[in-house]
Amino acid sequence: MSSHGLKEKLESVIRNVPDFPKPGIQFKDIMPIFLNAELCNQAVDSIINVYNKNQTKIDAVCSIESRGFFLGILIANKLGVPMIPIRKKGKLPAQVKSYTYDLEYGSATVEIQTNIVKPEWNVLIHDDLLATGGTAKAAAELIKTEGGIVAGFAFIAELDFLKGRELILPYSNKIVSLVNY
Amino acid sequence: MSSHGLKEKLESVIRNVPDFPKPGIQFKDIMPIFLNAELCNQAVDSIINVYNKNQTKIDAVCSIESRGFFLGILIANKLGVPMIPIRKKGKLPAQVKSYTYDLEYGSATVEIQTNIVKPEWNVLIHDDLLATGGTAKAAAELIKTEGGIVAGFAFIAELDFLKGRELILPYSNKIVSLVNY
Repeated sequence: MSSHGLKEKLESVIRNVPDFPKPGIQFKDIMPIFLNAELCNQAVDSIINVYNKNQTKIDAVCSIESRGFFLGILIANKLGVPMIPIRKKGKLPAQVKSYTYDLEYGSATVEIQTNIVKPEWNVLIHDDLLATGGTAKAAAELIKTEGGIVAGFAFIAELDFLKGRELILPYSNKIVSLVNY
Repeated sequence: MSSHGLKEKLESVIRNVPDFPKPGIQFKDIMPIFLNAELCNQAVDSIINVYNKNQTKIDAVCSIESRGFFLGILIANKLGVPMIPIRKKGKLPAQVKSYTYDLEYGSATVEIQTNIVKPEWNVLIHDDLLATGGTAKAAAELIKTEGGIVAGFAFIAELDFLKGRELILPYSNKIVSLVNY
């Protein structure tokens, strides 16, 4: 399947759910992707191919809670590298580092377990969706705090109008989104 | 690697974290497993082999939020079958069915998206840990409500002293745990 075919296939299975999680928000439900193992493999291969082509070394994949966990572990598994989770405050046991960032209303805190990222590791950050970029930026900050290098970002879908790309571009210009809205 | 070697390897990487998430609880941190892609593959193969041996057909894998997502999607991917998530209340968009069960203090509700499980599908339920069995039982009830058949249960670790196995045995006697405590 060409990458063009992949984009169309993803678009055809991603569901628009109006007013979720709250009124006025049109939610992109990516769960149907995981009903199709072959489509998952094509998404993983498409992401990996981009980094192979520009000869970016990836030592680990960082997956963001919790919809990022699915493709994140598949990418790591295919590459044969560690998968490191980034989770919401209080979810990861043992010693963690935290990063707090502003939301439209209030703030959010995400955490990473310490001493997992090895110095100078090139870490690919994955989440299902790039929206405002706040969470992806927080993940990048945590990777850097732990001594890693942000190798790039990979998303299933990107909401262009929220300009999240601008927020994370300072960390790496290798930003892959399989579908743009 | 023999299944005996797998058990020992898993035991050597699973971390005991005292007093998490609250005082008095000794938490089993399974995250280090996902730092080792080869170990993940061995865990997946070991689970699949059990079902192959007893000729159990698996049409889909149900993964329980959120530590169950990691190995759940890997098992589904290896089998080439759909992965269906079961999440905590309010996390899944669109139409869902809910199941509420008692906890030591209070209750918990988990949900599944409707019309994903096809009639008579044999569904393998996966979570990282079998403790009291309440969540695994809730997952089994949701699969049945949606017209599926519980093909079996697979866990990374099982806490024998909590007797969760007894609670889920009425749904399927095919219960695999890679490590028992």
